[in-house]
Amino acid sequence: MSGAAAGPLRVGILGATGTVGQRFIQLLEHHPQFRVTALAASDRSQGKPYREACVWRLPGPMPPEAAELPVEPPRPPLPCDVIFSSLPADLARDVEGAFVRAGYPVISNSSSYRMDPDVPLIIPEVNPEHLGLLDGRTSPGYVVTNPNCSTITLTLALAPLQAQFGVEAVVATTLQAISGAGYPGVAALDITDNVLPFIAHEEEKIERETAKLLGRFEGGRIIPGALAVSAQCHRVNVVDGHLVAVRVKLASSPEPAAIAEVMACFSGVPQRLHLPSAPERPIIVRPEPDRPQPRLDRDAGGGMSVTVGRIARDRVLGYRFVVLGHNTIRGAAGAALLNAELLLAQGRLRRAAT
Amino acid sequence: MSGAAAGPLRVGILGATGTVGQRFIQLLEHHPQFRVTALAASDRSQGKPYREACVWRLPGPMPPEAAELPVEPPRPPLPCDVIFSSLPADLARDVEGAFVRAGYPVISNSSSYRMDPDVPLIIPEVNPEHLGLLDGRTSPGYVVTNPNCSTITLTLALAPLQAQFGVEAVVATTLQAISGAGYPGVAALDITDNVLPFIAHEEEKIERETAKLLGRFEGGRIIPGALAVSAQCHRVNVVDGHLVAVRVKLASSPEPAAIAEVMACFSGVPQRLHLPSAPERPIIVRPEPDRPQPRLDRDAGGGMSVTVGRIARDRVLGYRFVVLGHNTIRGAAGAALLNAELLLAQGRLRRAAT
Amino acid sequence: MSGAAAGPLRVGILGATGTVGQRFIQLLEHHPQFRVTALAASDRSQGKPYREACVWRLPGPMPPEAAELPVEPPRPPLPCDVIFSSLPADLARDVEGAFVRAGYPVISNSSSYRMDPDVPLIIPEVNPEHLGLLDGRTSPGYVVTNPNCSTITLTLALAPLQAQFGVEAVVATTLQAISGAGYPGVAALDITDNVLPFIAHEEEKIERETAKLLGRFEGGRIIPGALAVSAQCHRVNVVDGHLVAVRVKLASSPEPAAIAEVMACFSGVPQRLHLPSAPERPIIVRPEPDRPQPRLDRDAGGGMSVTVGRIARDRVLGYRFVVLGHNTIRGAAGAALLNAELLLAQGRLRRAAT
Amino acid sequence: MSGAAAGPLRVGILGATGTVGQRFIQLLEHHPQFRVTALAASDRSQGKPYREACVWRLPGPMPPEAAELPVEPPRPPLPCDVIFSSLPADLARDVEGAFVRAGYPVISNSSSYRMDPDVPLIIPEVNPEHLGLLDGRTSPGYVVTNPNCSTITLTLALAPLQAQFGVEAVVATTLQAISGAGYPGVAALDITDNVLPFIAHEEEKIERETAKLLGRFEGGRIIPGALAVSAQCHRVNVVDGHLVAVRVKLASSPEPAAIAEVMACFSGVPQRLHLPSAPERPIIVRPEPDRPQPRLDRDAGGGMSVTVGRIARDRVLGYRFVVLGHNTIRGAAGAALLNAELLLAQGRLRRAAT
Repeated sequence: MSGAAAGPLRVGILGATGTVGQRFIQLLEHHPQFRVTALAASDRSQGKPYREACVWRLPGPMPPEAAELPVEPPRPPLPCDVIFSSLPADLARDVEGAFVRAGYPVISNSSSYRMDPDVPLIIPEVNPEHLGLLDGRTSPGYVVTNPNCSTITLTLALAPLQAQFGVEAVVATTLQAISGAGYPGVAALDITDNVLPFIAHEEEKIERETAKLLGRFEGGRIIPGALAVSAQCHRVNVVDGHLVAVRVKLASSPEPAAIAEVMACFSGVPQRLHLPSAPERPIIVRPEPDRPQPRLDRDAGGGMSVTVGRIARDRVLGYRFVVLGHNTIRGAAGAALLNAELLLAQGRLRRAAT
Repeated sequence: MSGAAAGPLRVGILGATGTVGQRFIQLLEHHPQFRVTALAASDRSQGKPYREACVWRLPGPMPPEAAELPVEPPRPPLPCDVIFSSLPADLARDVEGAFVRAGYPVISNSSSYRMDPDVPLIIPEVNPEHLGLLDGRTSPGYVVTNPNCSTITLTLALAPLQAQFGVEAVVATTLQAISGAGYPGVAALDITDNVLPFIAHEEEKIERETAKLLGRFEGGRIIPGALAVSAQCHRVNVVDGHLVAVRVKLASSPEPAAIAEVMACFSGVPQRLHLPSAPERPIIVRPEPDRPQPRLDRDAGGGMSVTVGRIARDRVLGYRFVVLGHNTIRGAAGAALLNAELLLAQGRLRRAAT
Repeated sequence: MSGAAAGPLRVGILGATGTVGQRFIQLLEHHPQFRVTALAASDRSQGKPYREACVWRLPGPMPPEAAELPVEPPRPPLPCDVIFSSLPADLARDVEGAFVRAGYPVISNSSSYRMDPDVPLIIPEVNPEHLGLLDGRTSPGYVVTNPNCSTITLTLALAPLQAQFGVEAVVATTLQAISGAGYPGVAALDITDNVLPFIAHEEEKIERETAKLLGRFEGGRIIPGALAVSAQCHRVNVVDGHLVAVRVKLASSPEPAAIAEVMACFSGVPQRLHLPSAPERPIIVRPEPDRPQPRLDRDAGGGMSVTVGRIARDRVLGYRFVVLGHNTIRGAAGAALLNAELLLAQGRLRRAAT
Repeated sequence: MSGAAAGPLRVGILGATGTVGQRFIQLLEHHPQFRVTALAASDRSQGKPYREACVWRLPGPMPPEAAELPVEPPRPPLPCDVIFSSLPADLARDVEGAFVRAGYPVISNSSSYRMDPDVPLIIPEVNPEHLGLLDGRTSPGYVVTNPNCSTITLTLALAPLQAQFGVEAVVATTLQAISGAGYPGVAALDITDNVLPFIAHEEEKIERETAKLLGRFEGGRIIPGALAVSAQCHRVNVVDGHLVAVRVKLASSPEPAAIAEVMACFSGVPQRLHLPSAPERPIIVRPEPDRPQPRLDRDAGGGMSVTVGRIARDRVLGYRFVVLGHNTIRGAAGAALLNAELLLAQGRLRRAAT
């Protein structure tokens, strides 16, 4: 019996006062399948109602249902059926582990478990079959992770190329938004009239997560994709929206127009299942010479589509394009939510006995 | 007999009211070898004193000597020995050509003649021998050009690698400042909270100019370098300073530390000749993980040094680094000025009979 | 018989390719009472379909119905029942006049006719009775104007104070968004890491329009309010949202809390008539010490509410507060649209014979 | 015998790693009268050489002499003759008090002691006679403070008006730079595409410090000026440079041109004494309609001049203008340094016995 039959599943959010936590609450406000029933944070906000504990930094008012929930310590038990986590990496491993051992499914946006061989790292349009890692488990608790925000944007664009043409090498240069660093995050003095050519651990994450995502699920484990990935990361003075300049070496030699077509037609399990947060088109291809642009394109598909432009031949790697994604929606809170919707559709989430 | 012996050479500036024209005037204010004696512009400012014709947009006051000069039409004759030009590309070819035919040496920052096979495209530290193209000329007028602002920054960093290790391929991704588009240039609505992934003609310029600059002068002509160059260009919300994320494939396999050393020790003819605008170190290598940054590093060496950081191995091309240069100083007005200083030192500029 | 009975009224937009023109099209896309049937612009875009003529600069796609309309020259006749105009001031007087003479009601966001004694200058919540200026007209054409974007924001906040306490003097200092200057408008070089302490004609507009808006309609004409208004205007690096720091001298001595209450409870004709674009609350009062903020509050009430904060006593004028409004919605396109909705509700707009 | 006779005075800097501390070190690098010999900070940087303890955030390299000094705890004794302090307000009172009791002159940029009746609050051009508060002291230690950064900018512009015309009321609205909040200070997410209409304690500081500065020194104490001051403060997205929009009510009725003249001719003790950091003109009056602007004018007079523009009549208060000052130079480190230079010239600083 699915959780949906018994009303919405109850969600507990770890890291509820942070940037991604606030996005979780915003995206879940009118969700047909989930309802926020527990909020937890690791800071001094514990014990207060969320309304007082959280300085709400998204445009629009704080959802009133969340406002009155108390902020609890991030440890089990919490009154919920499933955990959404956006804890800082240094806390996430222990805390999420405790919830798994206590029997909770944990849908995590944190980096702690992403590269664990038996933990699924999922973009539902790209590698839903990797959820097979969960098959045969006897304990009810598990972790499912989504990738780093830049990785998601990049890999969504690569997935149809990998499927159709084969991807041999990727050179990705990112121009990332300040919201990706959380709050307070980037100091204004560091980014006004400036670029930061460094984001700690980001390049390594992109290089290794992309390979795992584009790998095959075979014999109960993930065989990473054989492609070589190079990432150089920069912070730029943009509020939301990560832009990635990509060169790609393919195993075959399509016309650039064929690349555009394959991307524009790309679709996956979330679209077939009509998951609530699935955008109609995961990739929007724009023909104008000066798109995508963060401010104009980040909210495409409710922030769940990525936008590709400037597809052309490249003198060194063969092909190039630019891809943009909303880093706190498709790149974080929306990514985890879409994972949860897929898990629910597969019967992997259910209402806990209470 | 050199011009220096007879007092400073008289400079006429074409495009004097523009962003680069203003930099010319600023850099020449106290120059030991040159003095501004004529200003010309193609717009409605003709006939007025510069003070009235130009909205001065650089910090600090307008140099008083320039303020009282009249703005003249951009056609010969002008009361000067040498022309510095920063005209828009669509005007530059005709106007600069007219000055050459009238016997003026034209030091041009415009793109019109850069790729002409018999026109030197020069970075004095990189390819001074290309000035051999001027040898044997019988007419006194000629054009010497400097490269595009991004190309200069990139090529200064590549030159010591080419010399020491051989460069086979370059993948350059730029994050360029708004001042590179002149004034009014980029609309604030286009760049606030945004990135523009397109700068007209910029990618082509970088790709072909880099090859010409790294070419050999042989048998009276330039044999372009054999390297493959890929450029993807972006405008970011920075006032001054172009940052370039570079991957490079070398013909040999040095340690990254050897690359840093070769760059930090790089020096050329301008340094040996102690040209007035030559920076002590053309390339400054910084060890911090988060440098170079436009706001902190663009003024290094008076804006004439480029700053390199984040030198490391790269999974796809072999090596990577980030390089930053001041786009209106080393990338434009300062580039032309250094070319002029080199020409003067070689006896290729002289005081016109008056 | 009202236009509504015969289906939506047909709207022609003058200045359709500009920043405010695009907002008109966006706000009218799903409007229950109006439908865009004609687009006109004064530039070289005439003759092309809107899709080609207009570089769409709002987030989200161009509304498909507008995309296929041809861009026509701005002169009568146009296939529509009512004109919405956001022409530049230098063109508006002649062009709007021509449409009035041709029998069209013109709902204008331009400044040309605002201060004409027989032209209504209207904020529907503030001075709907000023539409009495239209009574007794025999010709079908007329102009109704809305104020300057800063004036609207300021006057909405002043109106309940005027009604309840009497306003004797206002000292308003604005921090205005770049979108208020249209496109291309403000040069990025002028506003990045900068403030411009000057907006042409803006201070005069605020000073005189506020007095007209707060005036009485008596004996068939407008008696301007007796208050003294001082405005100092600044452009700041914000995309949308004009913020106004206000000191006000009142005729009585309420507690600051009474000011907050009077503002929060303020409501007018648009709310009573449930006009489609009327916000539930024209003024939202926020208690936090650091609100309103442009990025967080500009979209309140769909961009049609203004947000007030920091209400307190002032040592010089008596009281102070800060008010924020969305300059291209409540301050321009939405202002004109609300005026049109009010005119329609009053039977002053009707379907033209065709 | 003055300290100068015995070589430069030795300076110890409290808060050396902060934004203002770094400015102190920069301004003192080549100072003819002072030399940095001790650095102290309250954070975990103690014990390390400054080179390692401080992330240098000013353009240009860290001065090499400071780089090798150890960072010491902020308590006496320190190897120096005079203390420059830019400690956070919550620490300054205790720490500075301890140095005073230990016999050190403390030149403080902190707010802790500014309003103490027996502590001089000084702008050398404005109220040098307030240093009379130090006369007759028997202990060698004392505190001299400079005002808040906005107050200095405002009061420099008011001082000649007060002297010539009498100032009865001031309405000041600030647009303040992010560097005023220190580092990390303002979060980029709070200020990108945004304005913050609140700076903690800033309005109160401006209101009360201005009155003290414009007060008379009479009978051994300060009689505050009788003027009423209203301040509303905003943070805007500018790196350096506080802009203040000012209305002022004068006791007499000069022409605006007379105000401009009085300001442009203003000069004081630092100019007469040719103190090393004194700008030639404390107030630069610009005639252009769109000046002062932070990016273009903040460095006027080496950052020690303020720039005034837009002087005009005002409908409510009588007169208006806009004034801009560099907040970390004239508004902080340079202010303290100029105070120290004045104290030295008056024989109130001397080399400690060692």
